[in-house]
Amino acid sequence: MKIKRALLSVWNKSNIAVLGTFLSDQNIEIVSTGGTKNVLEDAGIRVTGIGDITGGGSVMDGRVKTLHPKIFGGILADRGNTSHLTDLSDLGGLEIDLVVVNFYPFVQEAVEKNLDFSKAIEFIDIGGPSMVRAAAKNYHSVLPLCDPENYAEFIEEYEKSNGQISLEFRKKSASTVFAMTATYESAISNYFMKDEKSLPEIVNLNLSKSSSLRYGENPHQDAAFYLSEGQTETWHQHQGKTLSYNNYADMESAFNIPQEFSNTACAIIKHANPCGFGLGGNSKEAYLRAVTTDPVSYFGGIVGFNCEVNVETAEELIQPFLECIIAPSYSDEALEILKKKKNLRVISVGKKGLTDEFSIKSVAGGYLYQQKDSQQGELEKLEIVTEKIPSELEINAMQLGWKLVRNVKSNAIVFANSNQLLGVGAGQMSRIDSVKIAIQKVAEAGLNLQGATMASDAFFPFSDSIEIAARAGISTVVQPGGSIKDAEVIKKANELGVAMVFTKIRHFLH
Amino acid sequence: MKIKRALLSVWNKSNIAVLGTFLSDQNIEIVSTGGTKNVLEDAGIRVTGIGDITGGGSVMDGRVKTLHPKIFGGILADRGNTSHLTDLSDLGGLEIDLVVVNFYPFVQEAVEKNLDFSKAIEFIDIGGPSMVRAAAKNYHSVLPLCDPENYAEFIEEYEKSNGQISLEFRKKSASTVFAMTATYESAISNYFMKDEKSLPEIVNLNLSKSSSLRYGENPHQDAAFYLSEGQTETWHQHQGKTLSYNNYADMESAFNIPQEFSNTACAIIKHANPCGFGLGGNSKEAYLRAVTTDPVSYFGGIVGFNCEVNVETAEELIQPFLECIIAPSYSDEALEILKKKKNLRVISVGKKGLTDEFSIKSVAGGYLYQQKDSQQGELEKLEIVTEKIPSELEINAMQLGWKLVRNVKSNAIVFANSNQLLGVGAGQMSRIDSVKIAIQKVAEAGLNLQGATMASDAFFPFSDSIEIAARAGISTVVQPGGSIKDAEVIKKANELGVAMVFTKIRHFLH
Repeated sequence: MKIKRALLSVWNKSNIAVLGTFLSDQNIEIVSTGGTKNVLEDAGIRVTGIGDITGGGSVMDGRVKTLHPKIFGGILADRGNTSHLTDLSDLGGLEIDLVVVNFYPFVQEAVEKNLDFSKAIEFIDIGGPSMVRAAAKNYHSVLPLCDPENYAEFIEEYEKSNGQISLEFRKKSASTVFAMTATYESAISNYFMKDEKSLPEIVNLNLSKSSSLRYGENPHQDAAFYLSEGQTETWHQHQGKTLSYNNYADMESAFNIPQEFSNTACAIIKHANPCGFGLGGNSKEAYLRAVTTDPVSYFGGIVGFNCEVNVETAEELIQPFLECIIAPSYSDEALEILKKKKNLRVISVGKKGLTDEFSIKSVAGGYLYQQKDSQQGELEKLEIVTEKIPSELEINAMQLGWKLVRNVKSNAIVFANSNQLLGVGAGQMSRIDSVKIAIQKVAEAGLNLQGATMASDAFFPFSDSIEIAARAGISTVVQPGGSIKDAEVIKKANELGVAMVFTKIRHFLH
Repeated sequence: MKIKRALLSVWNKSNIAVLGTFLSDQNIEIVSTGGTKNVLEDAGIRVTGIGDITGGGSVMDGRVKTLHPKIFGGILADRGNTSHLTDLSDLGGLEIDLVVVNFYPFVQEAVEKNLDFSKAIEFIDIGGPSMVRAAAKNYHSVLPLCDPENYAEFIEEYEKSNGQISLEFRKKSASTVFAMTATYESAISNYFMKDEKSLPEIVNLNLSKSSSLRYGENPHQDAAFYLSEGQTETWHQHQGKTLSYNNYADMESAFNIPQEFSNTACAIIKHANPCGFGLGGNSKEAYLRAVTTDPVSYFGGIVGFNCEVNVETAEELIQPFLECIIAPSYSDEALEILKKKKNLRVISVGKKGLTDEFSIKSVAGGYLYQQKDSQQGELEKLEIVTEKIPSELEINAMQLGWKLVRNVKSNAIVFANSNQLLGVGAGQMSRIDSVKIAIQKVAEAGLNLQGATMASDAFFPFSDSIEIAARAGISTVVQPGGSIKDAEVIKKANELGVAMVFTKIRHFLH
């Protein structure tokens, strides 16, 4: 395949003059139109106007420029098929061997600027995708190029091959074209569906690999991190080892849990569950309090803050082995201190925070798409169902426990007082087992249940959990309610002098 | 908007004669070409050939038929813009108000038939997408139709509106077009990338809503189940309530765990973890044994089998409250028995089973894509690291425990003998806590640890877990190994007379 004639028609003019000059120097005829033609001519390159081939001009404000059989015949003719070449000759068309096209930027112009439909549709490119798709279909004879970043690679290939662009290169370029059209069409499709209610009929996801991960959940599983069209990196990594597959979800919890509190807060995550949480007058106090929840399990944890990390906190954070620190920001001095642990991943998240509205996950045979559990954990509508009315301090403890329990894997039980997490019972198949585990953890950590609450992510099916928790020392219970045995559970709480509130909201998490 | 002229060019000829007859009866001029024209004329409909408008014929085996300014001008002219209409008139084109197009079936012809690239590209439609995209862009003036299933809806709208198709209807049709082109381009893009290694640069997912779910993980979260292009329903539901969000992942475990065994097996899942597992001479025996693992937690569980469910088993399954039963098949009599519990979801999975190779999930700021943990749990390369050599029965127990532990949320500990699961320690932030929980569960269930093994999804960081498990009665341990304290752990096992094998494979699951 030898390039004799190239068609250039691009919205994004980056590098186009460089490419045009190169092609011109190789005695390749350049066919162009409109703005691209102007840029090339301004660079002193000789250009054949598309109108000179088609015999027509740009009509309807440019809507119909290139959609002509002489152009498409020139792109689509199979050079190995003599009847195609005869047909092309009969049409009066000329072979076009290189097609350089990129599109009206629908995402940047229509989506991000939130244009009205009547304006947005002007950014739906018709001619561009048609030409470059035609070139990509016919990659056995023609080379398509759509990304200005790839021109240099093309020039290198051209020089290396003395103008005989390899089939492999053309096929790869065709693959790039269809990745681009898939993303372009998906963006338009999503735009047309943007007014649909929360769960659209169609979900288009076009993901680009952002980074390969060392491995997936386990070393024998390959994995990578992807971004969707328009998504930019959320995390800024200051130092440390590359993030691992298992870090991502944990970081989300470590960052989001403290964000639910207006006071300075710190959370420590292990295996997708919080194993430490504390409030404090400053980040160091909050961190040290979080450590007390489980002074064993926090080892190797992921630590998150809702405030800037200062130098005193950094000094503490480099003492044990931790996987990641995540916070809105760090003082310069704190970052200096953290450098002493060079493997420690130190991450900041911008002001926008982590605010995805929907989550998606594959399951056997399909995909589950849902609104995230973004219910704020505020106990605004708390219904006190017991004779005993909780004190203000007890309500604070319930508030804290309720915000934490929805971040624990179900069945979830949390014991908390008004400034820290005291014990967690996570991921059990029976609720009472979670209660027993939480009690055990509190005892092992030597913590005090005076004024503490028991928070449950779903209702109690029986009253036994209330009984053993009250015996362990808690004085309040916060739970959704809704069991057929609620009356029995309330009766038990009254007998034991425990205050209980119903939230009416369940927070399963798996 | 009044339709005077329609262009029909379809690969899928379903309903096209009905549509053509309707249009003809409304005195709408029909423009067509090739096979579509033949079908319409055979139905006695008068048709204008595209060549009569463009003055050209079908050339290059049909590659260039419709790509002509008279056609695209007729589709793209903004009817509210007089200069557009003047341009169209100067071109000698005619307004085309309805564009009915569907594409060469790339997925059915090229992908599913696994064609070579040189043949596959013939199924990349160029003219069709160009025309219908043009019509969709200009939906303020033109109506695009691409799905034969929508013709009836169009006819209804036409009759209802007396031919004045509403802007809303046209916009919805345009939205359907871009959903279709997004899926079409993604299929081609995926085809071009099919030879890439396991983690492609681009992941295109175009999901269609298959069913709305009652709600997501919790009642305040909207959710739906989606299928990707080419995916068909994996589950066949015989009876019972609609599947819920939380059912899906649990069903996958309930079905896949027994599949790992050649003997008849039954697993019971609660909150994403197995809480029961048993082997048996028949499905009833396996089920009853699975129940003994945790005779409390199995209530409300999801029960899976690797064999046909017979009538005796069905009689047992209707005794307690269960959420779902999942199995390869059911005898007719068993299905009759299960009908007695009309809410019980009864699901079968075809022979293909659940064999997705990759999983994807959204996390804050991006997407994680990985190979699934499809390592079979066979202990082929087991390395015995202790003085004590396990007996054959003990190896069977280790085999069973090892297959189960990778299906338990991390940190995971499983106690098992050679025919059942005895206790599970799931989802803890510290491994020793999982050990303690598993011991507690075994004791509560009144089960016997004689000859039992302890299986761990990752290495033991300290020797304490071995000590307390041995004290509880286990005689073997199966774990990946790889801790810096392996020597200490092995020494402890030797002291306690416990046999231990290293598998070298970690199985974290979150």
